[in-house]
Amino acid sequence: MKTNIVTPALRNIKIEDPLFAHYSDMISEKLLPYQWDVLNDRLPEVEKSYCVRNFRIAAGELDDERLGAIFCDTDAYKWLETLAFCIESGRGKDFEPTADELIELIGRAQEDDGYLNTYFSVCHPDRKWKNLAEGHELYCAGHLIEAAVAYYGATGKRRILDIAVKFADLICRIFGQEEGQVKGCAGHQEIELALIKLSRVTGNKAYAEKARYLLDIRGQSPNYLVDELKRTGKDRIFPEFKDYDELYAQSHLPPVNQTTAEGHAVRAMYMYSAMADVAREFGDQNMKNACRSIWKNVTEKRMYITGGLGSSGHLERFTADYDLPNDRMYCESCASVGLMMFGARMAALSGDARYYDIVEKALCNTVLAGISAEGDKYFYVNPLEIWPDNCIAGTSMAHVKPVRQSWFGVACCPSNIARTLASLGQYIYAQDEKSIYINQIISSTLETRMKDAAIKLRLCSELMDKNRFSLSIQADRAQSFTIRIRVPEYLKNPVFVLEGKAIAPVIENGYAVVAVSHAGSQTLEVSGSITPRWMAANTNVRADLGSLALMYGPYVYCLEETDNGKLLSNIYVSADTQVEIGNGFDTLPGALPSLHFEGCRLESGTGDKLYAEPSFSFSSQRLTAVPYALWCNREPGEMQVWLKARI
Amino acid sequence: MKTNIVTPALRNIKIEDPLFAHYSDMISEKLLPYQWDVLNDRLPEVEKSYCVRNFRIAAGELDDERLGAIFCDTDAYKWLETLAFCIESGRGKDFEPTADELIELIGRAQEDDGYLNTYFSVCHPDRKWKNLAEGHELYCAGHLIEAAVAYYGATGKRRILDIAVKFADLICRIFGQEEGQVKGCAGHQEIELALIKLSRVTGNKAYAEKARYLLDIRGQSPNYLVDELKRTGKDRIFPEFKDYDELYAQSHLPPVNQTTAEGHAVRAMYMYSAMADVAREFGDQNMKNACRSIWKNVTEKRMYITGGLGSSGHLERFTADYDLPNDRMYCESCASVGLMMFGARMAALSGDARYYDIVEKALCNTVLAGISAEGDKYFYVNPLEIWPDNCIAGTSMAHVKPVRQSWFGVACCPSNIARTLASLGQYIYAQDEKSIYINQIISSTLETRMKDAAIKLRLCSELMDKNRFSLSIQADRAQSFTIRIRVPEYLKNPVFVLEGKAIAPVIENGYAVVAVSHAGSQTLEVSGSITPRWMAANTNVRADLGSLALMYGPYVYCLEETDNGKLLSNIYVSADTQVEIGNGFDTLPGALPSLHFEGCRLESGTGDKLYAEPSFSFSSQRLTAVPYALWCNREPGEMQVWLKARI
Repeated sequence: MKTNIVTPALRNIKIEDPLFAHYSDMISEKLLPYQWDVLNDRLPEVEKSYCVRNFRIAAGELDDERLGAIFCDTDAYKWLETLAFCIESGRGKDFEPTADELIELIGRAQEDDGYLNTYFSVCHPDRKWKNLAEGHELYCAGHLIEAAVAYYGATGKRRILDIAVKFADLICRIFGQEEGQVKGCAGHQEIELALIKLSRVTGNKAYAEKARYLLDIRGQSPNYLVDELKRTGKDRIFPEFKDYDELYAQSHLPPVNQTTAEGHAVRAMYMYSAMADVAREFGDQNMKNACRSIWKNVTEKRMYITGGLGSSGHLERFTADYDLPNDRMYCESCASVGLMMFGARMAALSGDARYYDIVEKALCNTVLAGISAEGDKYFYVNPLEIWPDNCIAGTSMAHVKPVRQSWFGVACCPSNIARTLASLGQYIYAQDEKSIYINQIISSTLETRMKDAAIKLRLCSELMDKNRFSLSIQADRAQSFTIRIRVPEYLKNPVFVLEGKAIAPVIENGYAVVAVSHAGSQTLEVSGSITPRWMAANTNVRADLGSLALMYGPYVYCLEETDNGKLLSNIYVSADTQVEIGNGFDTLPGALPSLHFEGCRLESGTGDKLYAEPSFSFSSQRLTAVPYALWCNREPGEMQVWLKARI
Repeated sequence: MKTNIVTPALRNIKIEDPLFAHYSDMISEKLLPYQWDVLNDRLPEVEKSYCVRNFRIAAGELDDERLGAIFCDTDAYKWLETLAFCIESGRGKDFEPTADELIELIGRAQEDDGYLNTYFSVCHPDRKWKNLAEGHELYCAGHLIEAAVAYYGATGKRRILDIAVKFADLICRIFGQEEGQVKGCAGHQEIELALIKLSRVTGNKAYAEKARYLLDIRGQSPNYLVDELKRTGKDRIFPEFKDYDELYAQSHLPPVNQTTAEGHAVRAMYMYSAMADVAREFGDQNMKNACRSIWKNVTEKRMYITGGLGSSGHLERFTADYDLPNDRMYCESCASVGLMMFGARMAALSGDARYYDIVEKALCNTVLAGISAEGDKYFYVNPLEIWPDNCIAGTSMAHVKPVRQSWFGVACCPSNIARTLASLGQYIYAQDEKSIYINQIISSTLETRMKDAAIKLRLCSELMDKNRFSLSIQADRAQSFTIRIRVPEYLKNPVFVLEGKAIAPVIENGYAVVAVSHAGSQTLEVSGSITPRWMAANTNVRADLGSLALMYGPYVYCLEETDNGKLLSNIYVSADTQVEIGNGFDTLPGALPSLHFEGCRLESGTGDKLYAEPSFSFSSQRLTAVPYALWCNREPGEMQVWLKARI
């Protein structure tokens, strides 16, 4: 079964949800200027990016040393992509001249043959395409292409698209099975999904073919990346690559034969997204099956309750089924962005709403947690518990930061979260020739067409406060189509009322299917019950067994020190602990409620002794939980998601 | 108060305890030949040591590349030291000719000025003493000196002592405050305690003075080691030294001003041991106070219940008070060897028995666990729980091995455990002019003198099976002295019977003091009660709060998969769970009993789901615990010390 599900253009979607509109506004008003200042090294207190400066050097306009992460060109590309999404959504237009200048600069940094990468152009022109494992050239190219597709889509201006096409054409010439072509694959996947996007926007199937080639060449024996690392000697760009293995970049098997999520979590998610794209583009059932197996493995065995991915801090990677430690893991913001990408593509590939349960989980927890409410601080690592005292430099916990940071030496996450939130509309709506899909219940409007009819939808969610949402549907002429609404699992006993009359829509692939045929307006109201719920993990999850996590709607809640004091680890609750819904916090966006309940604290009674025969005692404490998405936006301190269960 | 407590020569002590005599016999009969084969790269299936080969190269007798860890000379030195202890204890005499040959080889590898280090002599003669932070020259020198003192003590042969003295004299000339001298300190402490030993055996106080100097120069500002690492550039011997800081090698403050245990745990313990030596040697009260503060910090806030040290896998170091994660830490065998060294020195410095509680804890748990019953497999890292599935190369858990290894690229632990167990007698007995100290209740005999009287002691322990021990005292003539017996805390309500009559000895500094004055034989019998006990950790220990560990006598017990199945993490016990004492295991040494109790296993009831609302259920299970000291001597698999408490 091949679907034709596509996402409507962002220009036709308007986010009205109090929480997510906050982020949309914040991104265009605060984050874009902030990140532009960072990319130009204008903020003395923030870690230098060197990003724009490197393009000047590559363009021959500045004679200085190229600095910063080898792939930091992508920070400009993702900034540009974010801006494009803002512009398309009717925001951030003021920045368009700046973007056009940046694009011209990028163009001047491009070599005559199309090659574009400030690191290799400036520092090692002799090593182009010779260190795919570490070099990130294809990764940078992918982000250039994604930015180009977005900016072209938003503005209709071809300049950046031409730059990207020129580079893509070079890549297509460089990589391939013919004599003289490089038979390697990307060290960090990203080019593959970008080439699919480029293929779709240009109509040039050759890019999709090359994306498929770059997947198929992966995991062949002998292993290209491993052999290349041997060839390039001991002098590593990334010292941690001493531990490089075939799993790290998912090159242990051809992708079509992979069944489990392995290696570096971001690389993995980008590749799986491209696999889903290729499966769809070429109707490749084997690739689709591989995607399904991997998805199942990720979401049923290797994912945190927050939609976080990557259980190992070292090499930021997957480990083993059910290995989900809560404090030392990686859970990179980018990996959860990647999970949203993979999930949305799987939904588009299958027409199945359940993939969006996971998209919502990643979005409403790890992705939002990755950015401060003000947009100027970021988490790279998203643990489920924090004890600031042991987040010590030079130790196993050094990667875990107890507060969001202004920037990073490796700064993939800030711009990745930004472009994701700026394109949120694409995770809400989709459509094909027969249906409009509503994948997230986030207040917003959509203007689209079903064949000849102009359709306006207004989705108005009061899920978190009144456990209901409504959808008004307006068609300018009679047209038969269906609206497929993913009614979230956590809305229990949903009742559907169309124009005042109860209906019982068919549920198909997780969507409630509502038929529309006549012109004019009609309103669908859906109401049910959402209650805070205590969740447990599978018995095999050692880190969580005997603990409970509190969820309300899609939001995982956590305790913070500022509300509950220190030593959150000694708090016990039980599965029948009653939870009260409180007010939201004035200082936090979206008016998400606080949750309150009675817990108790355990003391072991060993006095000053480190170890002694116990004299356990409990004392009760009234506790306040906040959405994990918004933690560390008030006072820094301890935070904990999983609470011990008194059973 | 300056004490004159010394340890009797090993030649006068004979271990008779079934557990520890097993290790004594095993070391001389199996381990010495095994490790000798390893040091000579004779075992094809074992990681190469290159140790003896490197000496041949340095001696100019083999023209080849010097290989192996830069400090692997010490593996020969510690082997020699172990052999010396065996010879002095009347074992391993067959190896003396081999040792003498090795010593001659070492002598031929020594340079004319006394310098002796195969790495620098062969690979980088130009860099001698220029990379103290990484170079380990002083560390290697220290182990040479310790070996020399031991071998000279055991055999009376001066050759190795002369080699060591020649090198020590060079070091004394190289390091110092005068012009042209190096004003740096050791990157890995060890030389300091070795120079104290050399001072005592040679009577040359200059060595002790230099030991003191090497401590005092440490932690001065500007920081010698940090500056040196900057000077020596980016080309690190140890890539992980990118995270080097002042704490790592305890050079953040002058030792006399230090109060907490910081940095690399083995470096720390070796330094603290030397500090205790210097405090005593020079009657330095400030240094003694520093030692006390550090000891208190280690044992009351930063030590595992097994006597393990070092909470961070990365850089193998201390972290923060009460930060004691059970799975990912380091707990290097050598650090617990170092804790024994530090504790014994603190006891000698203070005359306080309580230090030996910790020595016993380290010995009977982590140090014994570090070596297989057969002596040919070793743990470097000693976690308190193991789940083999997540001990994956290239992840944060890569340092944790689920089974003991044949050898290591960095092989400090195997020979360190060996020399410690081979010199165990020195941890049992001590004496000064007025008293004989019995610090461990380990069946053994001691022959010594108190002034003119020849004294024979026979300590016969039936602690673990009959909760009693006896001490027969034989004096060949009347002589007044006291026997000071550390009666372990876990022997409750001890009753003392001397020659059939109950006595109530004074307890002084944790020792029961029994006066002896007449000639002939007398027998002291001490009996009490030892029961298995459930222990809790301090409320501040997040990793353990709400869990219980089972101890019996000094032994921490653990569950192993082979007895109890998988998923040990979901087992619950309670503080009043009754424990039955079972038989020992036929295949394990020492006839330590197994322990048995009824626990229950929790299931969260989420079915196949990764997260769901719980339906908790318990099922009871009969469980078998084994001494942690002996784990992984049967079938490999999961292991766990701390069990969840049902409270």
